[in-house]
Amino acid sequence: MYSTSFLYRLRPLPPVFTDFLAQQYSKEKINHRKMSTKSTDNRVLTVDTINPNVITMEYAVRGPIVIRAVELEKQLENGAKLPFNSVIKANIGDAHAMGQTPITFIRQVIACTSDPSLLKIEYYPEDVKQKALSLLNACGGGSVGSYTQSNGIEIIRKHIAQFIERRDGYACDPDSVCISGGASESIRNVLKLFIHPDSSKKKSGIMVPIPQYPLYSASIEEFNLGQVGYFLEEEKNWALDMEKKFILFFWTNELERALTENQTEFDVKVIVVINPGNPTGQVLTRENIEAIIRFAYSNKLFIFADEVYQENVYAEGAYFHSFRKVMKEMGDPFDKLELASFYSCSKWLTLGGQVGIRSGGYMGECGLRGGYVQFENFDPQVFVHFKKMISAKLCSTVLGQIAMDCIVDHPQPGDPSFDLWLKEKNEVLSSLNKRAKLVTQSYNKIEGVHCQEVQGAMYAFPKISLPEKAIKEALSRGEVPDFFYAKKLLEETGICIVPGSGFGQRPNTWHFRTTILPQIELFNEMLVRFKAFHERFLESYK
Amino acid sequence: MYSTSFLYRLRPLPPVFTDFLAQQYSKEKINHRKMSTKSTDNRVLTVDTINPNVITMEYAVRGPIVIRAVELEKQLENGAKLPFNSVIKANIGDAHAMGQTPITFIRQVIACTSDPSLLKIEYYPEDVKQKALSLLNACGGGSVGSYTQSNGIEIIRKHIAQFIERRDGYACDPDSVCISGGASESIRNVLKLFIHPDSSKKKSGIMVPIPQYPLYSASIEEFNLGQVGYFLEEEKNWALDMEKKFILFFWTNELERALTENQTEFDVKVIVVINPGNPTGQVLTRENIEAIIRFAYSNKLFIFADEVYQENVYAEGAYFHSFRKVMKEMGDPFDKLELASFYSCSKWLTLGGQVGIRSGGYMGECGLRGGYVQFENFDPQVFVHFKKMISAKLCSTVLGQIAMDCIVDHPQPGDPSFDLWLKEKNEVLSSLNKRAKLVTQSYNKIEGVHCQEVQGAMYAFPKISLPEKAIKEALSRGEVPDFFYAKKLLEETGICIVPGSGFGQRPNTWHFRTTILPQIELFNEMLVRFKAFHERFLESYK
Repeated sequence: MYSTSFLYRLRPLPPVFTDFLAQQYSKEKINHRKMSTKSTDNRVLTVDTINPNVITMEYAVRGPIVIRAVELEKQLENGAKLPFNSVIKANIGDAHAMGQTPITFIRQVIACTSDPSLLKIEYYPEDVKQKALSLLNACGGGSVGSYTQSNGIEIIRKHIAQFIERRDGYACDPDSVCISGGASESIRNVLKLFIHPDSSKKKSGIMVPIPQYPLYSASIEEFNLGQVGYFLEEEKNWALDMEKKFILFFWTNELERALTENQTEFDVKVIVVINPGNPTGQVLTRENIEAIIRFAYSNKLFIFADEVYQENVYAEGAYFHSFRKVMKEMGDPFDKLELASFYSCSKWLTLGGQVGIRSGGYMGECGLRGGYVQFENFDPQVFVHFKKMISAKLCSTVLGQIAMDCIVDHPQPGDPSFDLWLKEKNEVLSSLNKRAKLVTQSYNKIEGVHCQEVQGAMYAFPKISLPEKAIKEALSRGEVPDFFYAKKLLEETGICIVPGSGFGQRPNTWHFRTTILPQIELFNEMLVRFKAFHERFLESYK
Repeated sequence: MYSTSFLYRLRPLPPVFTDFLAQQYSKEKINHRKMSTKSTDNRVLTVDTINPNVITMEYAVRGPIVIRAVELEKQLENGAKLPFNSVIKANIGDAHAMGQTPITFIRQVIACTSDPSLLKIEYYPEDVKQKALSLLNACGGGSVGSYTQSNGIEIIRKHIAQFIERRDGYACDPDSVCISGGASESIRNVLKLFIHPDSSKKKSGIMVPIPQYPLYSASIEEFNLGQVGYFLEEEKNWALDMEKKFILFFWTNELERALTENQTEFDVKVIVVINPGNPTGQVLTRENIEAIIRFAYSNKLFIFADEVYQENVYAEGAYFHSFRKVMKEMGDPFDKLELASFYSCSKWLTLGGQVGIRSGGYMGECGLRGGYVQFENFDPQVFVHFKKMISAKLCSTVLGQIAMDCIVDHPQPGDPSFDLWLKEKNEVLSSLNKRAKLVTQSYNKIEGVHCQEVQGAMYAFPKISLPEKAIKEALSRGEVPDFFYAKKLLEETGICIVPGSGFGQRPNTWHFRTTILPQIELFNEMLVRFKAFHERFLESYK
């Protein structure tokens, strides 16, 4: 009825997306592909001459739906009459934008380091002032306006290493840490090392989970690398199913299938794991992690452990295990594998090892842009070149580095800021815990929507059953069906979610990603709008 | 005697640099090239398998000399006895690290936006609070911890557009501005559009001045683009000499020569102009700019105007002209050329058009990472893809965006913060003015050193005459002679400057780049050390 290859979303989004963006959602109302064959102007840079990977790359989390949501928001501000009175952005893990209040301690330290005159007045607690002072002393000329070393301020790297050490129980070298402007930057920097500029050679293949976070698909496409998708098992709550099955005439598991199918086209070098999962919200079991490590060893793969949601675990019995820790505990030869693990101050933050405190804290400082990569068994020569490469961007934002520091080296019991910090952290945490459960339960009550348990991270990825008639209409318009659905949802209700095709999904299944960040009142409002829309949608395409 | 091609530095630094780095200046004491032929370990990523462009790219401003300087600084801190008691870093334009104090207004606004509780107490002036409040209102959820639109907060882009409009006298569309984490990020983003992933095609050629700022050479190499160097004329105070000369059997000027010589190898698409110059400190005349624009038009080139030092002009009679303004004034067809111009909050900042205020302000907020690119005549379809590409990095740091805003939309006469702001700005400015003159005069007094007038920016690029014997010794060690000189200077005096070969220079000439940022007392100290070293050096290689 319709081509499977079109729906089987292991590769970047089909150009229909780009066209759609152009036709419907840009001011200029241009159709790129049509234009590109009749480009008449005399510009140096046109869609015919631009880097073709920039054209084909897609980044759904900020794609056409989000662009349109911003437009609608503006129309509302300007008094336009729309079928809704607010846009609800559940498309991106942006906690503060969704009403989350910041952790006071972080903001106080940033204020003091920005304006050191605050150190001289009676306003902030002593521990805030002391931390600010020690960080200022580590800045060139005592100012956050100075460049830092390209890999970040040394004392902050030391605190990060201590944090990792407490978490894993194994020593960590501060020189194995490089701070960056958010984890995204680190992930992209490490990916770049695998580029082959000689296009006559096989591209380096990067294994990514499907569904995946589109930073990977977008960067892989931009960098001219090869994406090798391995499927997560929805019905097993998005775990990685390592059971051998009879696929393609062989008994094989999902990782082996993905590797085998792509080995002729790509030189597969990397396996990316996102744990806890984005967009799928699962938390990998230790068994799963060990199996991945064994697979990486057998197939000589470099491991990317995207662990930005590491303390963001809600489900009973689920527990976060870092790849680093598991590798070290497995011992030789697995502890010799190359590993890059990523963390960020945008998401959730651990208190691992603190006396009397079990669970994680929440910061959500997305806009401050702090993050890091930590390497294990990284070739020291390659590391020299890596550091040289990142030095061309000078350094990441000093205030973002400081935010990262406040997270890995936070107030301790007895410190003046401790009580408030603990209270804020617990409030955030328990509220998110509730929302994780509420989101799962609420979506599962709606006909034709099926949502796995949100075990961790801050997203749900519900499956939607779309009526045949709706799928046909979408395809006849040249749109991916879940995109068609998401667009209608936005236009009719103001709810902005991301279609599942932006992350990848099994053929003929349709999903969307929503964050669990809207505060409970807003979420309930969102649910009312969503349910009414969904029922209308099913009815009209029955 | 020695091969000219080795010294003719239009291309990235020769591998001898990388080796030298490995041999002398890394903990591991490894020789990359030698190792690379006998790599025995089983790692996925080694110097044999890494992206080769990452190996060949060099970034002298943060190169081996600087790495060594950081090491020496640490040794001093740990009580080591060295021939000097402090390291003087004149390698990078990092004002605050060199004792420059920040502009109070910017820091107060950042403190208030970071910790909005400061808005409620009697500490900051009303205009600071008002600005902070209006910026917070423009942030998602009223928090600087939220992501912004990928191209930056709208109100800040509006302020930037108004600033450009006041400067040039021509309207500027806020949607033509994209904010980034420093200007470096914008420059790299726009360069990426010119990549050809198909290596069987000619690389896009990027014309850069020689000497140039190594962000260009490093990024061009990393992105697998082609560097096309055009020489600046040292004896004409580093102006671009557009006079026709008899070169290579033709009457041609320097831009034409560079283009013609490289057209068979590269598909030349871009001309980069750095004005005021880095590392050369010249300020282009309007005549020069017009000639470059005509050349770009005749040869269908996209113009990169790196104008981060735009208000940083000291010399009598020198005046900054923006490419945008000159293009618009020249009218059709020149005002239809594609232009990307870059600016930053790390450097100097204009007050253009403010009643009663002539010259620039100085911020030097390097560590805050604010900057932008503004486009003229950019293909709207290409722009859609550009914005999609940058969205994969989500957004630049919000506090960096806020710093940028404080610069383009600063206190006005009558505002409570105006007097202090004006005083601080003028102090900085007059002090730098003095230092620009002092640096030129002082170096010219030393035998064998010849320094052009520092007309603008914040660097001097003095020529050094190296004795034949020193050159021979350097080459026998496999080192570029000015690198050999800079290394000795660092080891014997603690002065850290960047060898001229990191920027490119005419064959058989040797230079170094120094900033004019050290405060006067420190500069005098630096000069005493430098003079003594230089005389010793000349003496010992006589």
